[in-house]
Amino acid sequence: MDVNMVLFDDFEGMDVFGPAEILGKLQKYYHIRYLSVSGDVINSVQGAKIWTDFLIPGEIEGVLLIPGGKGARRLLWQDERTLNLVKRAAENADTCLMVGSGSAVLAQTGLLYRRKLADCPLDKNWNRMFTAGIERIEGARVVADGKYYSCSSTASGLDMTLWMVADQIDIDVAQEAARQTGYPWDSCGGEEIYC
Amino acid sequence: MDVNMVLFDDFEGMDVFGPAEILGKLQKYYHIRYLSVSGDVINSVQGAKIWTDFLIPGEIEGVLLIPGGKGARRLLWQDERTLNLVKRAAENADTCLMVGSGSAVLAQTGLLYRRKLADCPLDKNWNRMFTAGIERIEGARVVADGKYYSCSSTASGLDMTLWMVADQIDIDVAQEAARQTGYPWDSCGGEEIYC
Repeated sequence: MDVNMVLFDDFEGMDVFGPAEILGKLQKYYHIRYLSVSGDVINSVQGAKIWTDFLIPGEIEGVLLIPGGKGARRLLWQDERTLNLVKRAAENADTCLMVGSGSAVLAQTGLLYRRKLADCPLDKNWNRMFTAGIERIEGARVVADGKYYSCSSTASGLDMTLWMVADQIDIDVAQEAARQTGYPWDSCGGEEIYC
Repeated sequence: MDVNMVLFDDFEGMDVFGPAEILGKLQKYYHIRYLSVSGDVINSVQGAKIWTDFLIPGEIEGVLLIPGGKGARRLLWQDERTLNLVKRAAENADTCLMVGSGSAVLAQTGLLYRRKLADCPLDKNWNRMFTAGIERIEGARVVADGKYYSCSSTASGLDMTLWMVADQIDIDVAQEAARQTGYPWDSCGGEEIYC
């Protein structure tokens, strides 16, 4: 299955490379692609320059991952064209993963209307402007609502990815990937909410 | 302080981008550089292509981080020139961080003779060939011995980085960075060993 990472300038690096670490241990099942609207070199918040291919919404299938980070805020305010492409890509994807403030990006496209999302520290303006008609589950680290998975922070992107693997393949496979990564994943944890 | 990430083809992505995530929250103190011997685009195990600058050992100061991954094995067997440059860079650095099998790379240069290292799953041949004269602390997630910090896995690279921040700046600063990342760091944990 393709996993399409949507990169934009000033994305939070580990929002992408944390989930990639888990899925990279499962190459039998997942193939990771790094995409952007410009198809060019993209800078993470942490100053890494990543080579990307073009995001072509019509070619998207499988999983779409949207990271958070400072750049997410810029997308929301200034970049209608990218939002449109991301919306179409998300419509085509079978599963959408959103890390931290990445959920605000997809919320802004209207796709998450009446969906449940994980809690995520946004400032008050963000919350008022970008999450009307959306139910944030207070204290939830990971939430899945239909094909939409969201999580509260960079590190919980690992939990979210592991839950997706458990749903799509098997919980034993997810547990083994967590073990190989050395990540203390609590697969019996009660914070995850499935709607 | 500079943090010099040493990249090589087939490095484990989160070994670099996990620590970068923590240190990127502390830009007042740390400046991250992505370096390689070829100064070219480098591929992670997870297929990300990262733009790097040249690793020039004489210019290294501050922190040097060496990731693990499939590429580390290739370095050990085939790449004397890179090992030499990494050795000189490590000698110049004030602090060396080694994630997972990254410690085998530095062990092979001879710099870790009689040092204590965190436990790390290597196959028997690796252990025999590359860790003679080195003491692995069984079950230890993070070990610091003088300027050399090592850790057992990809995820424990976050713990190691947080401990380094606690040592160099303040434990409150480290705890705040962990909180912002959403990483459940146990700063009272008993698995870390300082020599």
